[in-house]
Amino acid sequence: MSLFRPVIDAMQGYIPGEQPTEAGWVKLNTNENPYSPSPEVKKAIVAASDGRLNIYPDPLVKAFRESAAELFGVDADWVLPANGSDENLTILMRSFVDAGEQIAYPYPSYVLYETLAEIQGAKVARLPLTPDWHFDWKTTDPRVAASKLAFVPNPNSPSGNRWGDEELQWLTPEKGLLVLDEAYGDFADKPHKAELLQSEIGKRMVITRTLSKSYSLAGIRFGFAIAHPDIIAGMRKVKDSYNCDSIAIAAATAAIQDQTWMLTNREKIVTTRTCLTEALSEMGFVVTPTQANFVWCTHPDHAEGKIYEELKSRKILVRYMKFPYCGPEENEHREGLRISIGTEGEIDMLLKSLKELVE
Amino acid sequence: MSLFRPVIDAMQGYIPGEQPTEAGWVKLNTNENPYSPSPEVKKAIVAASDGRLNIYPDPLVKAFRESAAELFGVDADWVLPANGSDENLTILMRSFVDAGEQIAYPYPSYVLYETLAEIQGAKVARLPLTPDWHFDWKTTDPRVAASKLAFVPNPNSPSGNRWGDEELQWLTPEKGLLVLDEAYGDFADKPHKAELLQSEIGKRMVITRTLSKSYSLAGIRFGFAIAHPDIIAGMRKVKDSYNCDSIAIAAATAAIQDQTWMLTNREKIVTTRTCLTEALSEMGFVVTPTQANFVWCTHPDHAEGKIYEELKSRKILVRYMKFPYCGPEENEHREGLRISIGTEGEIDMLLKSLKELVE
Repeated sequence: MSLFRPVIDAMQGYIPGEQPTEAGWVKLNTNENPYSPSPEVKKAIVAASDGRLNIYPDPLVKAFRESAAELFGVDADWVLPANGSDENLTILMRSFVDAGEQIAYPYPSYVLYETLAEIQGAKVARLPLTPDWHFDWKTTDPRVAASKLAFVPNPNSPSGNRWGDEELQWLTPEKGLLVLDEAYGDFADKPHKAELLQSEIGKRMVITRTLSKSYSLAGIRFGFAIAHPDIIAGMRKVKDSYNCDSIAIAAATAAIQDQTWMLTNREKIVTTRTCLTEALSEMGFVVTPTQANFVWCTHPDHAEGKIYEELKSRKILVRYMKFPYCGPEENEHREGLRISIGTEGEIDMLLKSLKELVE
Repeated sequence: MSLFRPVIDAMQGYIPGEQPTEAGWVKLNTNENPYSPSPEVKKAIVAASDGRLNIYPDPLVKAFRESAAELFGVDADWVLPANGSDENLTILMRSFVDAGEQIAYPYPSYVLYETLAEIQGAKVARLPLTPDWHFDWKTTDPRVAASKLAFVPNPNSPSGNRWGDEELQWLTPEKGLLVLDEAYGDFADKPHKAELLQSEIGKRMVITRTLSKSYSLAGIRFGFAIAHPDIIAGMRKVKDSYNCDSIAIAAATAAIQDQTWMLTNREKIVTTRTCLTEALSEMGFVVTPTQANFVWCTHPDHAEGKIYEELKSRKILVRYMKFPYCGPEENEHREGLRISIGTEGEIDMLLKSLKELVE
């Protein structure tokens, strides 16, 4: 007899993208930044390793919070650091959603929201997206209204599109919170800070951010939430006391203080993104206009799963994704390739292989 | 109107021991190891900081799991690394305890179990300890039997005493799991590995370990659970995919591979512990025989809260703890001082101050 909670036995568990341990791969499957983090990060890590690692880290992560708060134009008590943005999503679920209550999220998007809801024993309402990634408001409005949390990645993954402020307001539950997952926020054409939170409806919004993508620090696990201080204070009760370690804190603080480095890499990625989008279109791919560090594409004449396999055999990893039960009728599926923006050289290799496969 | 779950609004949140950010304190309040981690740890951190921090860490933490498994004489699929042992306690609660179900833990001990139960919406049964830290089996047996998880720190905190294998078997719920929290296990007179898990009842046990104490790595947040592979596999569904970061993994792997360093520091701490115990006894303190890196003591003629305050004014931090509702009748309280074993020099400074205060 299993001793696990029934919901745990029933669930499959979230399956992250492949992480090959050996070198030699062109890795375009998990939206990592192809460039190194700021050199200040390494200096900060080495300095921290000389420090007192035998002592617990600062449970309030003051140094990082002050830097992030300054950047976003809020006070430090608006900021909650976490062991990766995923941890803040977990904390949000555990803070606001009782078993049996409902969460909502656009579909297709980040399936982890659904996994976290399953663990919490919560119901999940998918907000079906049309083939061109718009909300179907007739089904969306009542589902949002009945939800405690609406999780909305913006830009969205896997599509890369970005919804406007007006749509975000419609996606905010009347008796709940909008969790605006801005993991890819820095890659948007007009990245915004925390302006949305300043309005009245902003009291029912939480922005989550990560250093994994734009700051090239997927390896150190560091994210942060921004919200009104009463929301942050409650979430703090749910987090582990020492959820961020001394070295990650030092690395993250150094990274966020070096905006020039981040913005320079962002520019390179945006430039490569434009080239990739054009080249894919020329090969007959249908490419969704993207504001993230990846593109979503399909091909009318070639099975995307087959392209993925062929690329993998050449040590090029992209993400093949298949979402069942899509669309307003929920009887369709949607599949395609999500390709992370690598270096110019990596994208050239990808395009060379793709040409052989589809032309 | 609050949007938080009612249990979150109702709870106070766990309050960790004070962590002064400025230097100059003799810090004997949170059971940190006064000695530095192995020099191999720093080398591993610097090497990892040269690595690809832009890439996600290994979600299965293979390198560490293999080293820990070898040390404990189990296979790698018996080991689950986490972002500090506290994270594994959280994962256990979320894996096995539904809202309304019961957990049990000895009282007084680590109050965090109760906080985690509150967040999960679980009921808590305290297992009252007698003044000399024995279980009162008449109340304990039925409470354990009705519990899904029994959390038992061994050695216990704040007392430092250690229960025997027979008692641990009695503390294993028939329809649940014993979580044997061995945060201080390496300081015991006869530290055991995972022998208990090899028996039939071992299928209902989980051992949690941390690198914070014996390996001098409170700053990097790294713990691990050891249990039968089917338990580990289920817990893995609940954890965040990338809960351990690249640098912490490198540091923890280097630390656990340098047993000589850990054992040398352990010896120093055990020696200092004997000296401290004797000196406190000579000053009239009642000291619980301890197998951990701290001692629990009370004084018949001096209020422990006052001693704590006086020491703090001299920049010496110990932990003053007061537990209400203690004992079989649950109408008493228990208070005392928990003093972490520092360096010989730090303990000399403490004793010098204490002499002035109590003699």
